[in-house]
Amino acid sequence: MRVVQKFGGSSVADAASIKRVAKRIIDTQEQGNEVVVIVSAMGDTTDELLDLAGEVSPNPRPRELDMLLTAGERMSAALLAMAINDLGYTARSFTGSQAGVITTEKHGDARIIDITPGRIESALDEGDVVIVAGFQGVSQTTKDVTTLGRGASDTTAVALAAALKAGYCEIYSDVDGVFSADPRIVPGASRIPEISYEEMLEMAANGAKILHLRCVEYAGREGVPVHVRSSFSDNPGTWVKNIEKERTVEDPIITGIAHDRSEAKITVVGVPDRIGAAGEIFTTVAEAGINIDMIVQNVSVAEGTTAISFTLPQSDGDKAMAALRDARATIGFADVIYNDRIGKVSVVGVGMRSHPGVSATAFRAVAEAGINIEMISTSEIRISMIVNSEQLDNAVRAVHTAFGLDSDGQAVVYAGTGR
Amino acid sequence: MRVVQKFGGSSVADAASIKRVAKRIIDTQEQGNEVVVIVSAMGDTTDELLDLAGEVSPNPRPRELDMLLTAGERMSAALLAMAINDLGYTARSFTGSQAGVITTEKHGDARIIDITPGRIESALDEGDVVIVAGFQGVSQTTKDVTTLGRGASDTTAVALAAALKAGYCEIYSDVDGVFSADPRIVPGASRIPEISYEEMLEMAANGAKILHLRCVEYAGREGVPVHVRSSFSDNPGTWVKNIEKERTVEDPIITGIAHDRSEAKITVVGVPDRIGAAGEIFTTVAEAGINIDMIVQNVSVAEGTTAISFTLPQSDGDKAMAALRDARATIGFADVIYNDRIGKVSVVGVGMRSHPGVSATAFRAVAEAGINIEMISTSEIRISMIVNSEQLDNAVRAVHTAFGLDSDGQAVVYAGTGR
Repeated sequence: MRVVQKFGGSSVADAASIKRVAKRIIDTQEQGNEVVVIVSAMGDTTDELLDLAGEVSPNPRPRELDMLLTAGERMSAALLAMAINDLGYTARSFTGSQAGVITTEKHGDARIIDITPGRIESALDEGDVVIVAGFQGVSQTTKDVTTLGRGASDTTAVALAAALKAGYCEIYSDVDGVFSADPRIVPGASRIPEISYEEMLEMAANGAKILHLRCVEYAGREGVPVHVRSSFSDNPGTWVKNIEKERTVEDPIITGIAHDRSEAKITVVGVPDRIGAAGEIFTTVAEAGINIDMIVQNVSVAEGTTAISFTLPQSDGDKAMAALRDARATIGFADVIYNDRIGKVSVVGVGMRSHPGVSATAFRAVAEAGINIEMISTSEIRISMIVNSEQLDNAVRAVHTAFGLDSDGQAVVYAGTGR
Repeated sequence: MRVVQKFGGSSVADAASIKRVAKRIIDTQEQGNEVVVIVSAMGDTTDELLDLAGEVSPNPRPRELDMLLTAGERMSAALLAMAINDLGYTARSFTGSQAGVITTEKHGDARIIDITPGRIESALDEGDVVIVAGFQGVSQTTKDVTTLGRGASDTTAVALAAALKAGYCEIYSDVDGVFSADPRIVPGASRIPEISYEEMLEMAANGAKILHLRCVEYAGREGVPVHVRSSFSDNPGTWVKNIEKERTVEDPIITGIAHDRSEAKITVVGVPDRIGAAGEIFTTVAEAGINIDMIVQNVSVAEGTTAISFTLPQSDGDKAMAALRDARATIGFADVIYNDRIGKVSVVGVGMRSHPGVSATAFRAVAEAGINIEMISTSEIRISMIVNSEQLDNAVRAVHTAFGLDSDGQAVVYAGTGR
């Protein structure tokens, strides 16, 4: 069978790690598989290159930044191939461009348009292990080197797995898989052996760092089974895949709890209580190129006015505030307030569909922990609550317990430095 | 006019140096030129990458080593482009492959077959400064990334200058040009304002490190004027070009003195004094893939036997000795002696053609310095002498003085770390 394996930066941080990964790859090949490996840059290489760029130019051109950064994966790919060759096996490294990763031309955040893995196919036919530099491709239009945005090596891996019709795609990092909650917050969190694409999407979209959002989308669309596991152990990890079987009453209603500290809340107060005012506010934000997450329109607080709150990435906070202040006179609201001391806890599980009262359980659990819920949003399989950032960990623990997800004892040992 | 500029590793060793080089490039463009820049890897990057490779594999595959090492120039090229963009000008960096440097597939020591500078041409047409990663290309047959061998960025620069029909090619390093002798040995050495390709070839082939031999060959064949100068000063440097004009009596007979410490001498003693014996010895060495430099067949030392000495690169010493020992019985010589404590001093100048007695002057000067000449070889414009390595510096000074090349005072200030 064809297997695609992706190793993150912490898995190839130094020569010793690279050799260890090489052995693991060879084991997979020895089991009769054709192996294609996507590798990230070693440890902190990307950050070091970014620092170097910063010394030369305060804001380097994205095209040149891509040219610089892609050198990181190029080096780790070549070194990993050397390590495999040194074990008496044949490996060949390819840049994203050589591997046929065709992308849009948006430097720093390009999207994969197509994969033409001709060179990979022939290398596999010759019995080689194929090592592909992750996180990079080549622009279809300009033929320039592009990067897919940080963390996108996962996406490259899944896209290659689909293009190569691989049996599955293994994503190696320094954690044992996907957990019912972040084990750093909930020591009793348990590994999720299997999770559906849609549940993983909700987890990733709501703060679970383990898999890149676009990677999960791609895997789900292409139906590529993804095996998330640690390169520092032989533990089974988590399978992200289509789960066809009927769910039984034994199945947990809730699969996992995700949390996110990266959002901020903006509240627009004294909004004139007229038709279209809210629309103008969100048009203003949208035209600033900002995606918002949750929205709450409060009941009228003062005579004839209302307040509107919404959440957005903290990184867009300044831009949004500036845009709104500019529009203040036109729209005619009183003031705008920024608050980045919030956190989001999300309860995710397909079991919600068949079980009523899940939201009631979630709200009660948080309330009984003495935590005030500032905002709420739900999807068919998710309930998200915004709370004060200081109380986020408690909220996560409260719902994890309330839905009976606590296992006994330490769930996971972290190795390495994360991805 | 089109100008190609090449900057060595010491010229782009850190962010500050890269910014300084960027200004120099912009100045050249501001003078109304189209500028194409070839850049080496920053400072010791290549050595650091080699160390990294060594940690992973004692002898890495050349293909993978090329993939690894070329990342060095890729980084410096991108950083230099950023620095130029930061000054408000537009620059675009290209890998050797993107620049159309087509090579043979011999990894680590590929030769340029062709240059297809389509992307460079269009970038120049758009008014961009073009930055090309030196020392690398792409194999015509395998499409793999190749390197041209260390120091070959000079060759890339001249080859690009020829392909782009540039007016001239500037090779920037940390020395002020080509000198009548190595200023570290002869403080009174003077800068050579102009030198012919053939003289520069002899200088380079006999130890002058300033220009890569293949680069000079290429420049001479293509008739590309090469301007050798320092990136740490605005001094005029040395022009390597066709010198058509009649030489006058005022012209110095000798242009420069080169020296070389990288050779060793092998002496085969007790060679049977029969026809073909010498031939068998040199066939043996040649079949071991070793190029030899100078040969001396001594007069018969013992009854019916003779001794043959030749010089070769020290790096080939072990290989040659092993091959000869194996052939000892067959050829029937008594013994073979290895000596790497030799040095070669070469007197170079086209003036020799028209002036008799140059060799006499050279031999006398060395002899009067009390130095024994072990071997001699000459070309139409060169006289080389092998002396004891401890006496090499004295020999260089002696001939430099004998041919009236001494100027008064310090000739050059070395900056940076050399190439």
